Amino acid sequence: MTPAIAHVVTVGAALAADPEGAAVAAVLARAGILVASRVLVEDDEAALQRALGPDGALTVILAGAGSSAGDVVRRVLSRAVGARLVLNQRMLDALAERFRRIDRPLPRRADRLALLPQGATVWIPGEGEPAWALESGARRFVVLPRDGFGAALEEHLVPLAREYATGRGAVVTRVLRTAGVGAGELEERLAEWIGQPERGVEVTVLPAEAEVWVRLRARGASPEEALRALAPTETAVAAALGADCYGRDAETLELVVGRRLLARGLTLAVAESCTGGLLGHRLTNVPGSSAYFERGVLVYSNRAKQELLGVPDEVLRAHGAVSAACAEAMARGIVERAGAACGLAITGIAGPDGGTPAKPVGTVFVGLALDGAVTSRHLRLAGDRARVKWQSTQVALDMLRRAL
Amino acid sequence: MTPAIAHVVTVGAALAADPEGAAVAAVLARAGILVASRVLVEDDEAALQRALGPDGALTVILAGAGSSAGDVVRRVLSRAVGARLVLNQRMLDALAERFRRIDRPLPRRADRLALLPQGATVWIPGEGEPAWALESGARRFVVLPRDGFGAALEEHLVPLAREYATGRGAVVTRVLRTAGVGAGELEERLAEWIGQPERGVEVTVLPAEAEVWVRLRARGASPEEALRALAPTETAVAAALGADCYGRDAETLELVVGRRLLARGLTLAVAESCTGGLLGHRLTNVPGSSAYFERGVLVYSNRAKQELLGVPDEVLRAHGAVSAACAEAMARGIVERAGAACGLAITGIAGPDGGTPAKPVGTVFVGLALDGAVTSRHLRLAGDRARVKWQSTQVALDMLRRAL
Repeated sequence: MTPAIAHVVTVGAALAADPEGAAVAAVLARAGILVASRVLVEDDEAALQRALGPDGALTVILAGAGSSAGDVVRRVLSRAVGARLVLNQRMLDALAERFRRIDRPLPRRADRLALLPQGATVWIPGEGEPAWALESGARRFVVLPRDGFGAALEEHLVPLAREYATGRGAVVTRVLRTAGVGAGELEERLAEWIGQPERGVEVTVLPAEAEVWVRLRARGASPEEALRALAPTETAVAAALGADCYGRDAETLELVVGRRLLARGLTLAVAESCTGGLLGHRLTNVPGSSAYFERGVLVYSNRAKQELLGVPDEVLRAHGAVSAACAEAMARGIVERAGAACGLAITGIAGPDGGTPAKPVGTVFVGLALDGAVTSRHLRLAGDRARVKWQSTQVALDMLRRAL
Repeated sequence: MTPAIAHVVTVGAALAADPEGAAVAAVLARAGILVASRVLVEDDEAALQRALGPDGALTVILAGAGSSAGDVVRRVLSRAVGARLVLNQRMLDALAERFRRIDRPLPRRADRLALLPQGATVWIPGEGEPAWALESGARRFVVLPRDGFGAALEEHLVPLAREYATGRGAVVTRVLRTAGVGAGELEERLAEWIGQPERGVEVTVLPAEAEVWVRLRARGASPEEALRALAPTETAVAAALGADCYGRDAETLELVVGRRLLARGLTLAVAESCTGGLLGHRLTNVPGSSAYFERGVLVYSNRAKQELLGVPDEVLRAHGAVSAACAEAMARGIVERAGAACGLAITGIAGPDGGTPAKPVGTVFVGLALDGAVTSRHLRLAGDRARVKWQSTQVALDMLRRAL
């Protein structure tokens, strides 16, 4: 059975980051659809045309409706399905309504935005810009605005994706996320499952975002059947991963740490030097984190370390700000002053400057204060400033997770 | 003249973010090459084969060398160019050297990693994993490790890209980045340049990352000639943008703010509530930011706002933590306590919970303390938690930039 395949295309963005495309791909994967590729193209007709999925595939296109990217999409899709562009009254009404709500006049170019290929279906979500869909023989297209498509995904894309997947083979993907262990070690530990397609579940090890993901993929007539095929392998692989596996699919390390803090009724405070706010940022990305995140301090200067955390002068003089003693003093200082149950502290050299032979760039110390005890870890991280910052927060969150 | 065209493909990552692919695309664009698409595929041979650029194009492939993605790349490229996979001794030596340096035994699978299509050229950068390149007729391929390719880009990819672009038409892209102004307003202001291809410079307005980019693109026989063709339009467009344009190409708002602080010899301290560290994180992403970033506090709780910033009890009682009065008290508190020249403060409701009819989700106040004066702005932002956090820091940085 040919599985349900989708391509996600973002128009007008080959040089930018694309969190929107990743979010759409994740939604499709959860609906049992194999996302064969994600493509980012500039607002270029030839490039978009090449990126459209083949017969039988679903192509989801993200484009800013008000920008030239929208014009490119309208023209390319009208050619692809052989339909004229006509003024779509439902789209025009939806745009007029949107502008009325924000109390602005309908711009003259709105007429242009309502030109859609004949046969297009317009989706008007509860909030956000309108989206549209188009079907032609075995090809399906969905065009989403790049901004604020939240409601359109759940209200319209998910039902369409499920309906599209019905009757085709579904492919279900499960990601088991690990922290604190390398890809090579995991490959050896999972040798009996990797590269054994005859077992019906494909298992791969993917290094991603300074952690390692174990991806399981199974097929079935429906998403439910594929999930049933996946389950025994998932149980066995999860057991082999043990405590190194912290979550599944979209569960981030900060989400899992927050969940444990909440379950145990503990509060957390952080003290950051070289990560400059990234640890607090990750923790507070989790909705509801105000229930356990008490406060943080970004102590870039030594004076700030002394004034806000009471790091003793002797520690800074004898060991320096980048030391186990300083990380531990910072962790102790933040729990005491915040009156929090746990404290995490990070101090190090993110680079590219500031390294010495004894403490090269990438030298980082993480301190953890919990239940009256203070511990620390010494890291030697590779990569540029952004990678050192990210990996430092990764280790800090994982230290706390394993201690909780 | 057919311009030099490149495709960037990341293997094993259709569901993840891809900062590496974006970095490679930016390097190619600077070398005068038109990046027609960026593609993210799973470790799937058919998907990678479809993503390879056509005849005459340069395809840069990013893949984790030690993962199954590497095997997929080796097999697909050997088929694409019709060359056998052979053991490449230079690659094997480079791998052995890398493992010697980190004091680990060469894994058994290293032999497999050194299997490359006959005719491949191995690049051994000063640091990072080895990369390789392959030429076949008019097609060129470069395979980079996904981790730590920093040195390979400058040492090998840039010279190869320049050499590849020579004799073909170069396409030069310039991005003028704006903050604090909408895409619609910019389209009207730049009406005489947008959609006027006969002028030889293509001008487009692209909403990106909560700001708006104006992209200029010109062609020429060489990157230098294309740049000369671009210059008069760039000058005129920049003049029309005025103070709304803060930087060019890779210059971020935090970089530009930092540069101004440094030039004026000022220090900055921040107080964040709903952004939870994102403002400090962005500011400290800039190398050398320790010269002007003094400290920050993440004051999620009211108690923290009082203890760390001295926000008066009356302010919290009469106006609440999400108010202009609180944002101003926070900004005043942080400059005074840090002894810094400028202070930025953010307080608001990032959602999805915590909104009220009077203060819905997306209500944010930004406070700025500078030269003894304190001002604030009231924002009503749309979107989810991540977007509200990002946009809040965007407005805060832009307020400071315009005040400096």
